[in-house]
Amino acid sequence: MKIVTAGIILIGDELLSGRTQDTNLGTIAKWLAPLGVEVGEARIIADDADVISRTVRAFSDRFDYVFTTGGIGPTHDDITADCIAAAFGVGISERDDAMTELRTRYAEDELNAARRRMARIPDGASLIKNPVSQAPGFQTKNVFTMAGVPSIMKSMLADIGHRIEGGAKVYSRTVEAPNVGEGDAAKPLSDIEKKFEGVSIGSYPFFNAGLHGVNFVARGRDAAVLDEVEKDLKTLVKTIGNL
Amino acid sequence: MKIVTAGIILIGDELLSGRTQDTNLGTIAKWLAPLGVEVGEARIIADDADVISRTVRAFSDRFDYVFTTGGIGPTHDDITADCIAAAFGVGISERDDAMTELRTRYAEDELNAARRRMARIPDGASLIKNPVSQAPGFQTKNVFTMAGVPSIMKSMLADIGHRIEGGAKVYSRTVEAPNVGEGDAAKPLSDIEKKFEGVSIGSYPFFNAGLHGVNFVARGRDAAVLDEVEKDLKTLVKTIGNL
Repeated sequence: MKIVTAGIILIGDELLSGRTQDTNLGTIAKWLAPLGVEVGEARIIADDADVISRTVRAFSDRFDYVFTTGGIGPTHDDITADCIAAAFGVGISERDDAMTELRTRYAEDELNAARRRMARIPDGASLIKNPVSQAPGFQTKNVFTMAGVPSIMKSMLADIGHRIEGGAKVYSRTVEAPNVGEGDAAKPLSDIEKKFEGVSIGSYPFFNAGLHGVNFVARGRDAAVLDEVEKDLKTLVKTIGNL
Repeated sequence: MKIVTAGIILIGDELLSGRTQDTNLGTIAKWLAPLGVEVGEARIIADDADVISRTVRAFSDRFDYVFTTGGIGPTHDDITADCIAAAFGVGISERDDAMTELRTRYAEDELNAARRRMARIPDGASLIKNPVSQAPGFQTKNVFTMAGVPSIMKSMLADIGHRIEGGAKVYSRTVEAPNVGEGDAAKPLSDIEKKFEGVSIGSYPFFNAGLHGVNFVARGRDAAVLDEVEKDLKTLVKTIGNL
């Protein structure tokens, strides 16, 4: 089955300064997994028109799907729509269908020039519904442009799912190994990974409130194989752990 | 004064799958700000040797400093050290100084092949102390390679600060505008930004427990100018807010 990938572009100076903690990457990745789409890379970029356009263009060529978040509001720092148009060399203008969406929220006298900016959509794009605050996102070729505010971004995904043609799903199995040192598990863990083709095993140490240990996470596209891997991992934990 | 920038590379499949929520970007960015270093871009990349090497190489050329997190533990998926060596075309081997660090934590019979992997350091690199779990990070040219576990990563920054030659600091002023609609503030906000050279103003809507509004964040390298901007922003909020 086909492997389908996505690239995610998180746009905003506030993410790079540390003022705002991104959560959109995780939300999108977890939403994509059951659709059979794996996130290949994510970039967090500044509110810089050239960088946005270049990144969108490169990701559109490299991944099956691209998701952008941020920069589609009414203020001067909301430049994403223009950058998407520039990336694909198409025009951009205020669109009637987008104005119709805005009118479900705003009275006519509230629709000043700033708010009407949110109806500016690149030529040829289709809208993405925004049930939270109505200003729409949009799809240009394989690029989905969404809001940055997490609750709004999440609400837009409902109007994107049916546009995604997924491939082989990635399944995962997590086996917790309390009191196990990563270094003691490393060799047998690597042996297990080698034994099963198409399976990758990650090893993630944890330190919580006096507890420490490792989570082993096996990922792969064949659920039956992963069941076997899980058995081996559990045996490994019993063998080396102080259980 | 010189503008000094950093690129941040967050390495790990678990970040892209949404299993782990990154917090290292924010920690590093907030730690760099008072040193006079601004984060220009961050990338979240998979445990893929080619991608890691290429990204490190590109960021090393593009930014004054580069920080990587993740992939320096004892298991098979810990490939960052090798990728850094490959990126710079240098060798890599087990180093005595790194073994000395490991010996402060591990008894001789615990230092199996897996744990000794953590003493493999690219040629010419200098170590970065790890007061939490001893396995060191390292600096290769302008690239600082650190652990992925947040508490360990944070502890390594203490041994990096003195190696950073910062430039002009970026200051920020935040003015909260409760009950203000972004669209009503957009035009005067843009006017304020245009009035002050070298100042960028971001507008970040918030929705918390029934409260909504916008935070205006002005950023720039001249604190005195920012004081003026802050005054203008407060006047703006009074003018348009329902206060």
